[in-house]
Amino acid sequence: MDSRDLRIDQARTSIEFLGSDAHEYLPHLAVDCVVFGVHEGDLRILLTHWTKRDRWSLPGGFVRNDESVDETASRVLRMRTGLDDVFLEQFHTFGSLDRGHPGADRFVSVGYYALVDFSMATPTPDGILTDECRWWNLCGRPDLLFDHDEMVARALGTLRLQLGTRPIGLTLFPDDFTLPELQRLYETVLGRSLDRRNFQKKMRELGILTRVGEKSTENSRRAPYLYRFDAEKYAEALERGDSLAY
Amino acid sequence: MDSRDLRIDQARTSIEFLGSDAHEYLPHLAVDCVVFGVHEGDLRILLTHWTKRDRWSLPGGFVRNDESVDETASRVLRMRTGLDDVFLEQFHTFGSLDRGHPGADRFVSVGYYALVDFSMATPTPDGILTDECRWWNLCGRPDLLFDHDEMVARALGTLRLQLGTRPIGLTLFPDDFTLPELQRLYETVLGRSLDRRNFQKKMRELGILTRVGEKSTENSRRAPYLYRFDAEKYAEALERGDSLAY
Repeated sequence: MDSRDLRIDQARTSIEFLGSDAHEYLPHLAVDCVVFGVHEGDLRILLTHWTKRDRWSLPGGFVRNDESVDETASRVLRMRTGLDDVFLEQFHTFGSLDRGHPGADRFVSVGYYALVDFSMATPTPDGILTDECRWWNLCGRPDLLFDHDEMVARALGTLRLQLGTRPIGLTLFPDDFTLPELQRLYETVLGRSLDRRNFQKKMRELGILTRVGEKSTENSRRAPYLYRFDAEKYAEALERGDSLAY
Repeated sequence: MDSRDLRIDQARTSIEFLGSDAHEYLPHLAVDCVVFGVHEGDLRILLTHWTKRDRWSLPGGFVRNDESVDETASRVLRMRTGLDDVFLEQFHTFGSLDRGHPGADRFVSVGYYALVDFSMATPTPDGILTDECRWWNLCGRPDLLFDHDEMVARALGTLRLQLGTRPIGLTLFPDDFTLPELQRLYETVLGRSLDRRNFQKKMRELGILTRVGEKSTENSRRAPYLYRFDAEKYAEALERGDSLAY
């Protein structure tokens, strides 16, 4: 999709939200995406800023008549980040009675979560309803519109359960990282602090890390080691069972 | 809900399916329920028989304007089994483009799975579209209508993942059982056979079983012991982590 198509696509989604072209979409059905990335060892989340309301929400969109719900989620992710082919999974559908966008009907929303390579994403607002799209540190994010705080909490809960069964760490850390950075990711996902010594011991024993060098630093006495996930051994560990869960 | 209300309720759902009263429901949105129960040690599933098509499907229904999607699932379960307050959880939303009921529009369906006490359920067809509702042995069930075989497979996958985190065994076996019966349940959910000795050893070591007596038999040399789950210890085991997973 070139930039002009992208623009039309963005406009369409927003126009529908405002009431026109509604016949091109399934009524009452939306998709919202909890997009996670890691930068400088911190778990980040992608949010969009609503111009008129001056509040933040998850990126979302509506289901076209000619696309599956999974395709809607992929399209939303592509529009907001420029990324295709990323880890994107449904985690829960939100169907309570009080769900509705301002001035619009009740919406049932299918929640997806995505794990993306932070450095590859280009956050892009739709330019109509929202004027900004950017990463927030998960722990320092603003209160979100609608029931999106609940969505984030549930997505995190899913991430937590899936640490042992899906390639969460590998997907969030495609490149080098230090063990303290990895520990911070685990702590953010698990919502509790972990003992440094036990964490490092367990991670080393799993046999899924490769040491690739030392981190260049200017002012530390001893540079921390850099690691990378061994994708093959990671897959074998997942195959063996829940050993990656913490 | 008394039997007259139940009847009206059933008729309503079916009538909507046929096209009238559509304004009372969210369009394009359905709920389907994978209802599991255990009888004589076998995992069973509740299916309804479509009169005209002479085929079987999962029980399902449509989302009323005045109810949440969770409430729709509870209503469907109540209509088909007479049961309230049972283990009922959303597991996946099915949104592919080719989903549609015969002669009707595309439907996105929110899948729920339920664990019910087999002996307490009263299977009841709607009497309009379906003329029979009954339990099938999961392993001997007929091919299902629509994408319902995929739904069952996914629900089983969820059950498998949740063996270690939710009270699956306790909910399916509220009363006495023998260890071979419990093993059969685990084998059905896991889709593979387990070593008898290891299984019994592991289950005893978990400390969640109470021996309550011997099964009365007429023709076996030695009667097998009967067990019951200790609900409190079961909850503690779940709290401790994934020790119930196999």
